[in-house]
Amino acid sequence: MKYIIIGAVAGGASTAARLRRLDEKAEIILVEKGEYISYANCGLPYYIGDVIKDRDKLFVQTANSFNERFNIDVRPMTEAISIDSNLKSVQLFNSSTGANYSETYDKLVLAPGAIPIVPPLKGINLPGIFTVRNVKDTDLIKAAVQQLTMKHATVIGAGFIGLEMMENLHHLGLDVTLIERADQVLPPVDFPIAAILQNDLVEKGIDLKLNSSVVGFSKSANNRLIVEIESSPSLETDLVILSIGVKPNAKLAVDANLKIGDFGGILVNEFMQTTNPFIYAVGDAIEFKHPITKKSTTSFLAGPANKQGRICANNIVFGNTNSYLGSINTAIVKVFNHTVATAGLSVKQLVANNIPHLVSTVFGGSHAGYYPGSEQLAIQLAFSPKSGALLGAQVAGNKGVDKRIDILSLLIQQNGTVTDLCEFEHAYAPPFSSAKDPINMAGFAAENMLNDMVEVYYWDNITDFSKDEFLVDVRTSLEFKKGRICSAINIPLDSIRERLNEFPKNQRISIYCQAGLRGYLAQRILSQNGFQVRNLSGGYRLWKECTDALNATQQLEKT
Amino acid sequence: MKYIIIGAVAGGASTAARLRRLDEKAEIILVEKGEYISYANCGLPYYIGDVIKDRDKLFVQTANSFNERFNIDVRPMTEAISIDSNLKSVQLFNSSTGANYSETYDKLVLAPGAIPIVPPLKGINLPGIFTVRNVKDTDLIKAAVQQLTMKHATVIGAGFIGLEMMENLHHLGLDVTLIERADQVLPPVDFPIAAILQNDLVEKGIDLKLNSSVVGFSKSANNRLIVEIESSPSLETDLVILSIGVKPNAKLAVDANLKIGDFGGILVNEFMQTTNPFIYAVGDAIEFKHPITKKSTTSFLAGPANKQGRICANNIVFGNTNSYLGSINTAIVKVFNHTVATAGLSVKQLVANNIPHLVSTVFGGSHAGYYPGSEQLAIQLAFSPKSGALLGAQVAGNKGVDKRIDILSLLIQQNGTVTDLCEFEHAYAPPFSSAKDPINMAGFAAENMLNDMVEVYYWDNITDFSKDEFLVDVRTSLEFKKGRICSAINIPLDSIRERLNEFPKNQRISIYCQAGLRGYLAQRILSQNGFQVRNLSGGYRLWKECTDALNATQQLEKT
Repeated sequence: MKYIIIGAVAGGASTAARLRRLDEKAEIILVEKGEYISYANCGLPYYIGDVIKDRDKLFVQTANSFNERFNIDVRPMTEAISIDSNLKSVQLFNSSTGANYSETYDKLVLAPGAIPIVPPLKGINLPGIFTVRNVKDTDLIKAAVQQLTMKHATVIGAGFIGLEMMENLHHLGLDVTLIERADQVLPPVDFPIAAILQNDLVEKGIDLKLNSSVVGFSKSANNRLIVEIESSPSLETDLVILSIGVKPNAKLAVDANLKIGDFGGILVNEFMQTTNPFIYAVGDAIEFKHPITKKSTTSFLAGPANKQGRICANNIVFGNTNSYLGSINTAIVKVFNHTVATAGLSVKQLVANNIPHLVSTVFGGSHAGYYPGSEQLAIQLAFSPKSGALLGAQVAGNKGVDKRIDILSLLIQQNGTVTDLCEFEHAYAPPFSSAKDPINMAGFAAENMLNDMVEVYYWDNITDFSKDEFLVDVRTSLEFKKGRICSAINIPLDSIRERLNEFPKNQRISIYCQAGLRGYLAQRILSQNGFQVRNLSGGYRLWKECTDALNATQQLEKT
Repeated sequence: MKYIIIGAVAGGASTAARLRRLDEKAEIILVEKGEYISYANCGLPYYIGDVIKDRDKLFVQTANSFNERFNIDVRPMTEAISIDSNLKSVQLFNSSTGANYSETYDKLVLAPGAIPIVPPLKGINLPGIFTVRNVKDTDLIKAAVQQLTMKHATVIGAGFIGLEMMENLHHLGLDVTLIERADQVLPPVDFPIAAILQNDLVEKGIDLKLNSSVVGFSKSANNRLIVEIESSPSLETDLVILSIGVKPNAKLAVDANLKIGDFGGILVNEFMQTTNPFIYAVGDAIEFKHPITKKSTTSFLAGPANKQGRICANNIVFGNTNSYLGSINTAIVKVFNHTVATAGLSVKQLVANNIPHLVSTVFGGSHAGYYPGSEQLAIQLAFSPKSGALLGAQVAGNKGVDKRIDILSLLIQQNGTVTDLCEFEHAYAPPFSSAKDPINMAGFAAENMLNDMVEVYYWDNITDFSKDEFLVDVRTSLEFKKGRICSAINIPLDSIRERLNEFPKNQRISIYCQAGLRGYLAQRILSQNGFQVRNLSGGYRLWKECTDALNATQQLEKT
């Protein structure tokens, strides 16, 4: 058997290595357009930021080491130009030697990855404007930031890579402006979770420009870059990082008449097989069926690419026996002392897909509050109002965010419910968690909603308040004095039973506490006493994060 | 309705609070033998060790605050003497006032907890010998360690609490001797995982005495304690902590003719109901059906107790509708810079229960190796040889152990398989994990065993080696020179294809590498070339940990 794999980073390299493990005798050719194979894509921003000091650490394998270990014919600097699917051959071009030649295959694997989106703006090709996708980009940026004249950098796009680049450039001592077209950082997550991160960025002095579209670039008189922003003053900068997203690199597949999906990716079935049975595809370039929406989707993540590679090789060697369940796009980003993570569908995706859902947000300690160093984290769950099936989860905080999102990601993959979270048996000792982990608390809160034990409202419902609403802060008077929501009156939880006569019988009562738990207790007392009452999900704390983030954005826009 | 709950720590307090949330009008009496309710049991060793500085932090609730918040009649210093299940009444004794009185109930909940095992040894009641179970114990120990004459402490029992006490006493500057009857520390986990921790303890200078039984205590001439050890010299010490385990406190239940289980616990059904339908029980005192063995079992953990309390209250108020799935005894302990955790059944439990299983151990980085601060951790999986169902998992390392055990615990609870681990989609960014998380790697290795892609052997098989065995170290020659196993010869992985003629055709070949991965690659090459070959699970690294631990124990016993 002769296998050709096009693309030698995460998905391609994984496929090639697994093919060799399964078939010691096959001829395996691994073709890579660039100079490097199997490098640590996700480490590039940290190498630029000098967090990773040694450039060699970025290279998991070299062409030589990969060949030595796996007896794979690795061909760097080699581009696949076209596929002749009738002849089962690939036209290859070696950019070092200029040689043009073809190779036949029994099975072909496409792993060409994704390419950064570069909008056709005025001046987009000016020196000093970079994308961050591969080692070449990285070396150029690294050289640029080491120039003594470098004072200010602009990152366009506040997604995962944009945020990592922003942090790393800030870490190098540069002033950084972060420009995002949306009304929040990290558009893949929902606003309240993003708000927690956003408030921290503003506090750290990052110049954040939301709702801002870059319309072009030019050079200033003193040879700096000028970033032109729609309806806003232009800004002068020394370096521009363009991180507004990537798109599947499907040109080869399009030309070979393979079926392409809604997002321009190479469509594969559950066996990672394209519409040509002799051609498989993996990684950022593909489209597959989303496990929850059942619609075609993409995933630009290294984890899924690696797993797809292993499954693809299994199916090539054993026949199509190993089904890929699809990625739920579990992702995480560290930004200064904050970490934000997501798994499954965001609330906005659920809305866009017309999938019925309930949403609940709780706060909890990263570990037992009585053990030093505990920090608060927020967990937002979205779940089916019928079955309680967990549809999506987002976590923001610092310590322990990665642990909680991984647990929630696994549960989504296992088709679990919020009730499973109530029963989830975590490893508890004071340095690691609490007897009731925030994951359990999130489950309890969600299950109570599912069982109609509670009714909740959300931070953004408060703008709708009419005079018919009776808003009660059930925190202590001290907490109340430090800050309240709008026209709320204060009736602390522990005095509610004695002050029942102060609550109106024929009016809806909206209560809130700091994070939601005391509000829930108050609600149980009041509703069992015949009052119509609802509790603010995430409490004053989440409302404050959201309104602070909104206000900061509006203020920034005014200035 | 009138509810009485006996015992006001984790399980009892949780039940009482949930009962109130579900039934605002019920009369709820919470009886506690001791002075304190709902305190942070698991924090006690850390308060003794001055890690938790403020004693007040140990108290989640006081009798007053609990009463204020939940309108529950909390009665500390009140012991339940007997139950009259015909009259549905409990005889109570107030140890402050000396009052003896009875209370009737509609439903009774028993949450009396567990009591430390105190063997009837000579001198067991001498001053300076303590158990660590409650606040009273803790205050006594705290007072003792603050004495200036305190130089040396002896901890008897190297289980979870024993190890935490050892660390905390060491943290206070005391010399500590740790005595354990078994041949390893942390007997609930399997030897190889315990060995990793054990080697670290020996390195830290802890005086560790394994295979050692304490037979009695006496006072020395200078008024210190003498610990007498079977077949060993006695030792002088200033303080003895007895942490050899606990047993269910079931006296009240026994006297009330409730059915008791094999381990002396109060037998409950899946609704937390005892054999008397009006009496429920939760927490350390109960026995329930183990989800994997289906046999009766106990759990002395705060997490399960809290969850049982919530379920118990649901069943009392709504009728028996909420089934408890049982605890898989997920647990974790931090000891100096090491963390060890377990979920599900250990290999020795699987053996004892005649449950067929395969075992696989891998090492992996807590996060991407190219990002600073990554540390190795070991993951041991035990799984069904037929279905691949995950039966047990143990993790040892430092960073990220809690995350991995929680993921594995959830998967065991969800009846997941090792194949699910291959597909598990974790949140990956370099500070948190690798593109293939150690959890995935553990899944890959296990799935390969399940699919007969590999044959493994274990560190303790090597003592059986006959001359018929061809032992090959496939690491680099540099690694080989630094240390090898027995009579191994060195054929580095990357040269195997050229040196196939050095391998014997009619003899089994046992190979090993550092952690198992390269050995697996070597095995794939060799087996596809017609050789009979097996790979060492966990590699040289695990073998070294195990043999080091064994040697240290034997050496200590000789001296």
